[in-house]
Amino acid sequence: MMISQQTTGPVPGRVLAADLSRHAGHDVVLEGWLHRKRALKSVVFLVLRDRSGLSQVVLTDPSAMAGADGLTEETVLRVRGTVTENPQAPGGCEVTSPEVTALSGPAAAPPFDLYRPAVPATLPTVLDHAPVALRHPRLRAPHAIAAASVAGFRSALDTRGFTEIHTPKVVASATESGANVFAIDWFGSDAYLAQSPQFFKQAMVGVFERVYETGPVFRAEPHDTARHLAQYTSLDVELGFVSDHREVMAVLRDVLAAMADSVTRRAAEECALLDVDVPRVPERIPEIHFADAQELIARHTDKDPRGEPDLAPAHERFLSAWALREHGSEFLFVTGYPMAKRPFYTHPEPGREEYSNSFDLLFRGLELVTGGQRLHRYEDYLDALQRRGESPEPYAGYLAAFRHGMPPHGGFALGLERWTARLTGADNIRRTTLFPRDLHRLTP
Amino acid sequence: MMISQQTTGPVPGRVLAADLSRHAGHDVVLEGWLHRKRALKSVVFLVLRDRSGLSQVVLTDPSAMAGADGLTEETVLRVRGTVTENPQAPGGCEVTSPEVTALSGPAAAPPFDLYRPAVPATLPTVLDHAPVALRHPRLRAPHAIAAASVAGFRSALDTRGFTEIHTPKVVASATESGANVFAIDWFGSDAYLAQSPQFFKQAMVGVFERVYETGPVFRAEPHDTARHLAQYTSLDVELGFVSDHREVMAVLRDVLAAMADSVTRRAAEECALLDVDVPRVPERIPEIHFADAQELIARHTDKDPRGEPDLAPAHERFLSAWALREHGSEFLFVTGYPMAKRPFYTHPEPGREEYSNSFDLLFRGLELVTGGQRLHRYEDYLDALQRRGESPEPYAGYLAAFRHGMPPHGGFALGLERWTARLTGADNIRRTTLFPRDLHRLTP
Repeated sequence: MMISQQTTGPVPGRVLAADLSRHAGHDVVLEGWLHRKRALKSVVFLVLRDRSGLSQVVLTDPSAMAGADGLTEETVLRVRGTVTENPQAPGGCEVTSPEVTALSGPAAAPPFDLYRPAVPATLPTVLDHAPVALRHPRLRAPHAIAAASVAGFRSALDTRGFTEIHTPKVVASATESGANVFAIDWFGSDAYLAQSPQFFKQAMVGVFERVYETGPVFRAEPHDTARHLAQYTSLDVELGFVSDHREVMAVLRDVLAAMADSVTRRAAEECALLDVDVPRVPERIPEIHFADAQELIARHTDKDPRGEPDLAPAHERFLSAWALREHGSEFLFVTGYPMAKRPFYTHPEPGREEYSNSFDLLFRGLELVTGGQRLHRYEDYLDALQRRGESPEPYAGYLAAFRHGMPPHGGFALGLERWTARLTGADNIRRTTLFPRDLHRLTP
Repeated sequence: MMISQQTTGPVPGRVLAADLSRHAGHDVVLEGWLHRKRALKSVVFLVLRDRSGLSQVVLTDPSAMAGADGLTEETVLRVRGTVTENPQAPGGCEVTSPEVTALSGPAAAPPFDLYRPAVPATLPTVLDHAPVALRHPRLRAPHAIAAASVAGFRSALDTRGFTEIHTPKVVASATESGANVFAIDWFGSDAYLAQSPQFFKQAMVGVFERVYETGPVFRAEPHDTARHLAQYTSLDVELGFVSDHREVMAVLRDVLAAMADSVTRRAAEECALLDVDVPRVPERIPEIHFADAQELIARHTDKDPRGEPDLAPAHERFLSAWALREHGSEFLFVTGYPMAKRPFYTHPEPGREEYSNSFDLLFRGLELVTGGQRLHRYEDYLDALQRRGESPEPYAGYLAAFRHGMPPHGGFALGLERWTARLTGADNIRRTTLFPRDLHRLTP
C-alpha cells in the first residue's frame, strides 16, 4: 500500500460509490473522504464517502493494514482496487486488493464524528464548524433538497414565459419598510442593503411582463429566533396582466408543484435519509378569506380574533390543521388580509376596501409565502402614500414606472430556507442555511 | 370604442402578438403597451407591444378614431377584435373592428421615443430612466440574452453532478483582497460585502464536490470606466478531484458551449435584433502558456513584455486576434500566470513554481473568466500566507476546511454582465446591467 501525496496526472475513469455495483469483477478508481476506519484483528475496513454515497474498501494484507494506521478520518483518498460482490457490504459490493493514496494531508479530527447516523452535536457546534460539519450526510441533505427546490421553481417559470432578472442589492433609501435595514458606506454616501427586490421586480413587469429572481435579501432582524435570519434566499415572482390576486395564486400553485416534483426526483436519497414527506400539492389549493378565517377561529377556539389586523401563530396552526382535516391539503391560502397590515403598494379588495387582494400561503402550520395584487396606477400610489402620511419624494424612482403605464400585476416571495425547513422538519432555519448570518453570527 | 379603466374580471384567452397569425379569422384579446399611435386622415394605427413582440390594431370607425385621441404611448391597453390577414401588416395579420380598453391611466411621455428602431438617447438618460427605457426592444434584448445565458450555465452544470449553493454576501473580514470592500454596520459590528463566494465555494467542495452559484458580488471600485461595476452577477463554479487546472478548463468549455447554445435557442429574436454573432465554442479551446504568450508578443509586436507579471489590455487583444487567425477560435486560454499576480490560494505550476496552475479565458479581445487550481493542503495555505507576510488568523474559518481534508480542486468565475456585453457588442457594461450600481449611481 502506497501512502503518497502525489496529485497530478490524469485519473483514469473515476467511479462514484453509487455506481460501484455496475463494475463488479473489474478494477476501478474511487476517490473520496475516509468516512470511517474500522480496524479489526485481521481486516481493516475503510468506508469512503463521495458525492454519491458510501463504499467499503477492505484491507487484509498485513502491510496494507499497517499502512492504514496513519489514516485519519476525513483524509482524502484515492483507491484503486477490484470490485467484489459481497451481500454483506453496503450496496452489495466492496473494493478488495486496494492500493490507497492520500490526496490530502492527514485530516485533523472533526468536531464530532461524521460517520454516526445521528448528529452528535448541538446547533452552535454545527454552525461554528460548518465547512466540516456540513459533510455529515444528515446535515448536507437539506441543502441538496434546497437546490432541487430552486431548480423546480425555475423550471416551472421558464416554461411559463418568465424571464430571470438580477437586481441591485444596494439601494439609496429603505423603501420596503423603514425599519430593519443595514446601512452601508457607499463611497462616502449612505446606502442600504435591499430588503427585497420588490420595486425592481415590479418595474420589470413593465419590460418583460413576467419575471423572477432567486437572490439574497437582507433584514436587520433584532430577533434571535429559530425563524429569523439576517440574510436569506428569496424566490421572487412578479407577473403582469392578471385580473386579480387569484392568477398569482394559480402560478404559485404550479410553482410549488414543480418544486415538490423536483425534490422527489432530484433529491430522492436525501428525502429518504431525512424521512421527508414531500407534500402533495392539490390541483387547487383551498383558500379562505381573512374575515371568514377569523369567524372560523372565533367559532372553534376560545379566542375571538375579530378586529385583529393579523393572524396569531396559533391561529395559523389552527387554520392549517383545519385545511388538512376539511380539504386534505397541507397548503392553505388565506386571502384578503386587512390593508392596515399590508405594504402601501397592496391592491385593495374591490367593494371591501379595508381588505386587500393579497394572500399568505400556510404550509404545515406556518406562513411560507406572502403575495398579492399590487396597485398599478400612478394616482393610486400617490393616494396610498398620502393616506399613510408618506411623501412620494423618496419613491420617485419607483413611481416612475407607474407614470409610464403599468398593467395590473401581482407576485409573491417565498423564503427558500423556510420552505426547506418545513419540508425537512428542521427545528431551526439555520439548519437549512449554509452559513447563516444573524444578530450574533458573521462567521464562518 | 370604450375607454374604461375597469381591470377586474377574467380575461378569456389572451393571445400574444407572436401567436396572432394562428388566429386569423377569429376574435381575440390582446393586451400590452401602446407602442406607437399613428393617426392618419381615415385610419388610426395602434401598434401594441407585449412580451412576445408587436401587433397592429386598425381603427377605421370615426367614433373609435376619435376615442383614440386621448391614448398616449405606453398606456396599457386591452384590445378585443378580429384577426385579419393583411400582407402589409407586420407578421401578416392585424386586428380589425377593435374594442379598446385602457388598463392603466394615460401614460406620461417616456424620456425618448420607445418606438424608434434606434435608441435616441444617451447612456445616462437611459440609466436615469431605466424602468421605462428598458422597455425599448433594443435595450431590453441584452437582458433576455443574459437570462438565456444563465439558464445555459446552470443546465450544463446540473447535468454534470453540480449542486447549486447560496452563500453569505456579508462577511466579517475582507478576505479576497483587502482593498475595494464596502463596509456595513452589522448590528453595531464591522462587516463587509463579499467580493466573491470564493472561500465558501471552496469549503463546499468538501461537502458536495461540485458546486456553483449565480449571485451578486460587490467591489468598491473607485474606477469610473465602461468595464467596472460596484455590483455584478458572478457565475461561480468549483469542483473537486481534478488532476489540475485543465479539468476546470474542460468544464468551462462545456459551460460556454451550453451558454451559447441556450442563447441561440432561447433568445433568437433578441440576437437577430441586436445582430449578435453567437460564437462557436470549439471542442477544444486553444491555450497558450503565459511565458509563451510573452514570447509571442515580443516576437510580433514592438513591445517586449517579458518580466511583466501580467498582460496589458493591448496584448490581450493581440493574443485574441492571434487565436482567431491561427486556430479559428474566438476564445483563448492563457494559462500559467505568474504566482506574483494571483491570489494566495492559487496552486503553483509543478516544476515551475513562479508560474501557476491558473488561467484566464480571453473572448474577443477581453478577459472574460479567471480560474485555476487552488491549494488544497492545509500546510500549503500556511506557507502561502507566510510567504506573503500575512497572518493566518483572519483566515481561520476559511482554513478550517483544509485542516479536515480537502481534495485537489479548482474553479472559475465568469462575470455575467461582461459576457453579455461582449456578446452584444455593448460599448459599456452598464448596458447589460438592469440597474447598475457604481461610484456615482445608486438609483433607480
